[in-house]
Amino acid sequence: MLPVAVDAVGGDKAPGEIVTGARRAVDELGVPVVLVGPPDRIGDPQGLDVIACTEVIEMHDDPSSSVRRKKDSSLVRAAEAVRDGKASAMVSAGNTGATMASALLRMGRIKGVARPAIATPIPVPGSTPTILLDAGANAEVQPEWLVQFAQMGASFFSTRYGGDAPRVGLLSIGEEDTKGREQEKLTNALLRSTANVNFIGNVEGRDLMTTDVDVVVTDGFTGNVALKTLEGGMRFVQTAILERLTATPELAALFDQVWPALEPLATDLDPESYGGAMLLGVDGVCIISHGSSSARAIVNAVGVARDMVQEDLVGHLRQAVAVQV
Amino acid sequence: MLPVAVDAVGGDKAPGEIVTGARRAVDELGVPVVLVGPPDRIGDPQGLDVIACTEVIEMHDDPSSSVRRKKDSSLVRAAEAVRDGKASAMVSAGNTGATMASALLRMGRIKGVARPAIATPIPVPGSTPTILLDAGANAEVQPEWLVQFAQMGASFFSTRYGGDAPRVGLLSIGEEDTKGREQEKLTNALLRSTANVNFIGNVEGRDLMTTDVDVVVTDGFTGNVALKTLEGGMRFVQTAILERLTATPELAALFDQVWPALEPLATDLDPESYGGAMLLGVDGVCIISHGSSSARAIVNAVGVARDMVQEDLVGHLRQAVAVQV
Repeated sequence: MLPVAVDAVGGDKAPGEIVTGARRAVDELGVPVVLVGPPDRIGDPQGLDVIACTEVIEMHDDPSSSVRRKKDSSLVRAAEAVRDGKASAMVSAGNTGATMASALLRMGRIKGVARPAIATPIPVPGSTPTILLDAGANAEVQPEWLVQFAQMGASFFSTRYGGDAPRVGLLSIGEEDTKGREQEKLTNALLRSTANVNFIGNVEGRDLMTTDVDVVVTDGFTGNVALKTLEGGMRFVQTAILERLTATPELAALFDQVWPALEPLATDLDPESYGGAMLLGVDGVCIISHGSSSARAIVNAVGVARDMVQEDLVGHLRQAVAVQV
Repeated sequence: MLPVAVDAVGGDKAPGEIVTGARRAVDELGVPVVLVGPPDRIGDPQGLDVIACTEVIEMHDDPSSSVRRKKDSSLVRAAEAVRDGKASAMVSAGNTGATMASALLRMGRIKGVARPAIATPIPVPGSTPTILLDAGANAEVQPEWLVQFAQMGASFFSTRYGGDAPRVGLLSIGEEDTKGREQEKLTNALLRSTANVNFIGNVEGRDLMTTDVDVVVTDGFTGNVALKTLEGGMRFVQTAILERLTATPELAALFDQVWPALEPLATDLDPESYGGAMLLGVDGVCIISHGSSSARAIVNAVGVARDMVQEDLVGHLRQAVAVQV
């Protein structure tokens, strides 16, 4: 297959952890990878091919203007590599907004898609994750877009985790069809008549980390708030438990004994295990990794990119949105 | 002081835990309490006075129509008791929407308040909680209402936890003033020019369980989603840890040894410790306890009700909203 283009200069731990992760993806997964970035910023490419460019969109650059302005940036060049058939997919842990804008402007949208959405896996240890979308691409939406998010989210879930009719829920503040804002009431009614979505009705925030639903649809504002609230809560609990169980030498000794039982849970809850979020609706595979991604997160992201290329995610999404409400 | 009116028949564990909690509040806190409900539903009032009525608004009754229809229900009678100077405050673990509607229709709004909001404490172990509002009273809002939520939330925080200028944040999807929906952009600008609010700018979901902010303002849809997401996440982690640390007799023995170090954290994270949510903006003290409230939650709620009556919360709220933007 064509190499996966990895933005070597995006993310809090770039380039070190990103390049190391890309190298490990080649060695461990056998997936071809090409780095994208200015050679002087990348440093040692660890033997990997490089698509050289001269600019970098920094984490705090304004997304849309920087993509227009920095035409020779790693993000824009990575998206062009996919568009031009030089790469099979792109992966970046850099500026999320600029990653979306680069993919959207250079790859274009899948025919019929109103707006791309970010689909983020929420860990449910012992089960497949819950896919939450939109996790931040569109702060304000229309009911028809949410229906497409449902179609794309279900298609992505099936492509990635298997299963024919993943259960799709609409995030609201009560299970009854009449609960929520005007937006949820209209969307609920549309989803009830969407042929290729297994709509189970409204779900609530507390359902995200359960096995009761596979795909949860909402606008990018609510989705982003829910995601960051959950991340913050999980981080808080993990830190608090660690502090308390290492407060004395006696506790620390006990902690060493219980840790083997807890470690798999901590790993399962770590967003790095999940290979990043997918930008669904652009005409190519684009993975948005967490800004704090380490080498392991990049290995997982490259693995998911390979799977989604081989399983023809884009083809499945195209079919899914072709079904009109 | 006048007794606190406790809805004896509202909540998943009513009347047993509710009546027991009310009795314990009298015994342990010395706060006078009157139960409200149909005597045959209450059973043994454990020696407490009862405001007898004939109807009950059930958990799944439609809030506004049931309040209009069931004029002799415990919720309506409890709100009337406050209005008529027969009770100092009301506490219910029953139907949240109907509690709000009863308080709003019978007590009325504080002069100048556009809409009441639900203020919910989010535990931050080792510190004062973060007050989140609106946690569900108004699914759709206007920027001017959010400014009043900020004024009322700050006033409530000071009244309950002390401190002169609690830090108020606006929940959004990025810290910059330009992040969020049109609603957040307009509200951010209004809050920057509100004299009696110590506005620290936009905050994100991950800030809720930190010491970086005291009061977080948002609409009732987003607030409810964030709250339930956090509750679900916390419950998930606690259950998962407990399962893993009791999976074998050896682990269970270790768990018994580490539990004393973890128990204070579990208690701090338990919503029951916080005495319930406050309905801010009605002309009286109204506490909305969690539907799953046990006796301990009711004791805490009655204690908070007593404090808010004695500290003249309603007077402070009235002053806070009198400051125009």
